[in-house]
Amino acid sequence: MTSKTTGTPSASYSLTIRLKIRRGGVGLHTVLETIAKAGADTHGIDMPGSDNEFVTRDITVLLRNSEHGDEVVRLIQELPDVEVQHVSDRTFLMHLGGKIDIVPRREIKTRDDLSMVYTPGVARVCKAIAADPSKAFSLTMKGNMVAVISDGSRVLSLGDIGPLAGLPVMEGKAVLFKRFAGVNAFPIVIDVHDPEEIIKVIKAIAPGFSAINLEDIASPGCYIIEDRLRDELDIPVFHDDQHATAIVVLAATINAAKLTKKQLRNLKVVVSGVGAAGMACCKLLLAAGVRNLIGYNINGPIYNGREGLTEQEKWLSENSNPKGFTGSMQEALKGADMFLGLSVAGVIKAEDLAGMRRDPIVFALANPDPEVSPLEAKPYVRVMATGGSDYPNQINNALVFPGIFAGAIEARVPNITDEMKMEAAKALAAVITAAEREEDYIIPSVFDPRAHKAVAQAVIRVAQRTGVARRIRTTTKS
Amino acid sequence: MTSKTTGTPSASYSLTIRLKIRRGGVGLHTVLETIAKAGADTHGIDMPGSDNEFVTRDITVLLRNSEHGDEVVRLIQELPDVEVQHVSDRTFLMHLGGKIDIVPRREIKTRDDLSMVYTPGVARVCKAIAADPSKAFSLTMKGNMVAVISDGSRVLSLGDIGPLAGLPVMEGKAVLFKRFAGVNAFPIVIDVHDPEEIIKVIKAIAPGFSAINLEDIASPGCYIIEDRLRDELDIPVFHDDQHATAIVVLAATINAAKLTKKQLRNLKVVVSGVGAAGMACCKLLLAAGVRNLIGYNINGPIYNGREGLTEQEKWLSENSNPKGFTGSMQEALKGADMFLGLSVAGVIKAEDLAGMRRDPIVFALANPDPEVSPLEAKPYVRVMATGGSDYPNQINNALVFPGIFAGAIEARVPNITDEMKMEAAKALAAVITAAEREEDYIIPSVFDPRAHKAVAQAVIRVAQRTGVARRIRTTTKS
Repeated sequence: MTSKTTGTPSASYSLTIRLKIRRGGVGLHTVLETIAKAGADTHGIDMPGSDNEFVTRDITVLLRNSEHGDEVVRLIQELPDVEVQHVSDRTFLMHLGGKIDIVPRREIKTRDDLSMVYTPGVARVCKAIAADPSKAFSLTMKGNMVAVISDGSRVLSLGDIGPLAGLPVMEGKAVLFKRFAGVNAFPIVIDVHDPEEIIKVIKAIAPGFSAINLEDIASPGCYIIEDRLRDELDIPVFHDDQHATAIVVLAATINAAKLTKKQLRNLKVVVSGVGAAGMACCKLLLAAGVRNLIGYNINGPIYNGREGLTEQEKWLSENSNPKGFTGSMQEALKGADMFLGLSVAGVIKAEDLAGMRRDPIVFALANPDPEVSPLEAKPYVRVMATGGSDYPNQINNALVFPGIFAGAIEARVPNITDEMKMEAAKALAAVITAAEREEDYIIPSVFDPRAHKAVAQAVIRVAQRTGVARRIRTTTKS
Repeated sequence: MTSKTTGTPSASYSLTIRLKIRRGGVGLHTVLETIAKAGADTHGIDMPGSDNEFVTRDITVLLRNSEHGDEVVRLIQELPDVEVQHVSDRTFLMHLGGKIDIVPRREIKTRDDLSMVYTPGVARVCKAIAADPSKAFSLTMKGNMVAVISDGSRVLSLGDIGPLAGLPVMEGKAVLFKRFAGVNAFPIVIDVHDPEEIIKVIKAIAPGFSAINLEDIASPGCYIIEDRLRDELDIPVFHDDQHATAIVVLAATINAAKLTKKQLRNLKVVVSGVGAAGMACCKLLLAAGVRNLIGYNINGPIYNGREGLTEQEKWLSENSNPKGFTGSMQEALKGADMFLGLSVAGVIKAEDLAGMRRDPIVFALANPDPEVSPLEAKPYVRVMATGGSDYPNQINNALVFPGIFAGAIEARVPNITDEMKMEAAKALAAVITAAEREEDYIIPSVFDPRAHKAVAQAVIRVAQRTGVARRIRTTTKS
């Protein structure tokens, strides 16, 4: 199956096509028919102008992918009486000029203002921080500034495309940090790839930041870097690809289990893919009480005693799969309660789900195409979730990272602890009330402000309870 | 002389003091008298409340320095019938919560928006950049983002206060970049100090930026770092402390020379201080045609053949002081046209200026206190400039760096060349017309938008003429 002919048209692949349609010719309806026949969705139609001879139309079309867009434009071009004037890709337009700006928080209108924000007044502020470095949290950007750092070695599903090509993702994250939790975040893409060098660079630039969000860094480097920086820096370091995904997965699992009246400790979970994100999911699910979890890497099941495991997989082999199951994923799925995929499309067929225990839960999170298509899986599944926005129950790490960092910054914690992640997942699950909870609604939307607030508050609560908060706010946030 | 009893009260040391003044007691006028007698200026008076017994007043007071502030508050506290309720330092208030924010350039209102700025849509943008890295200039923040980088080793006049304590200055610069030239700039303070390590860190983080502004880095590291990075990076690297100061000094020199009807090639210039900024000034003045220039370091004049010179000073000894003058600065000033100070207060006395040639030009740029007080120098000087905002003719590098970078970014030059600096200085000087030019107006205000535009346009013009522009804009700026 090729992605050219599958998938649902979406805004992420949409074009606005400007046409001149000759009056008395084939007409607009023929254009729309052509678009529909090609499997694309007409999203909007405008008329920016007309004269005696032509009507100009802007037609926005949702497509499956770039090739699909090329095809639709070609088909329209072949119509008589229709002239394609311009094609603009809406996604590229959204990125034009970059996605973030730096803006002053104070107006500089007069020489007096200047003498306070810059020399000579600023010297006193510098001296105050030199005397007491903790004042930097209130007197500089450090109080609310996350560095989103990537070497571009594992960007989305694109792999090692390098720092510059990874920058649009990091900028996107910065946008979401602000949009969902009011957190200032700045993307720094780095052109070093050896873990030791990455550690050095991050330690060097750390002073100005309140926290570090590691992003899209290939394993095993991502583990080494995160572990070392957690020890060596006094601000939180959080590899989002691992932990944010794990927190959303646990939240969704909690609600799916409630809905199906199952207990986490009795859940049989089959996990396809134990890379950075998959491994973090396994760890958090186990910490939350799941016992019967069987993970699969590309060569088969992770069991105690298997040869050639990575360090992480070895840990998993000793802390999961209690019966030492060595069979195939298809066999493991028999009697399983839940399938969790963080791998690639096609590792299972829909029919493989047929033997699962009552009320099967399937989280197929591979991107851009899930392990199993929700449409095909539908007959076999009670609760389905994917990583995409085109089905209900989107497992989106943007539900977590803004709030996690907002809470960590607010409480000025030195680290984001396992307990914070656990409580954040529970708080995120609890956003959906028992009355609201249903098959198509086990996880809140990223646009639900309750979600981000719940996550942030959970982090602050744990920070205060465990005594790691370095600030207890007594006044309201300015 | 101590700074406690000298200097002019200014906004950079100002307090807002909230007082309760008992009705029928000494009254507001006594408070104001106390402030005036202490040598402070009352800048504003508000009445936030009153009752039968008390009138509450907010009095904003301009002071000479922190100690002066303490003294004024103490004197007011000693008054009968007056209770000091609260003292807020206006400069610190300007820095509270940091001085910059990161803001999204696009609104994210819907799931569709999200799918375009973030996954899955962003993947196409990443792929486009991976295929053609130059697209990062239009599709990411790289197109308009300067890194303001310092290790905090020589911050203002404060010296080596470290990266965190230097951050308020770097944030201040970011504010000015945006305010004066619409340039996005982000402060990065780094906790490494060896030039080789600084070079490594800056090269690592360079991909996301259109230019690097080195700031407040001690010499000789600043020379090594700038030279190496200019060679090894394909984006401009500019040590602002050196070059921006030099450009403003040359611009002011050009106008002072015109005003006094002198030619640069005939000017005798005595320079006190040949550190990073002083050396850059000497180089640019020499490049502009000055021949008879004598520089002084702390041990005396720089002349060809003197022992123990640094590499930079050796260059200067071979390219200035054509008569090999070896006498004192006081002797050198006899018959000199211009004194340029980039050193410390007190290196010359006002009377030392008495023997200068007709229409003496004195730029006393030491901070916070100039080499010679303008008031004391007044009888001997025709054109005076300082680094402060409390006298006319402020030599402020903020006149230059925003426009230099704006032009460099606009034309996408790989380097800021000597010719660009020269043309920028001439353009800055030319902002002041012959009719406007006078003793107290040889350099424009930083609030004069013509200044920043002239500097940027000069850079673009040279870039295009010399063929180093990597972009020629054909449309207006969005």
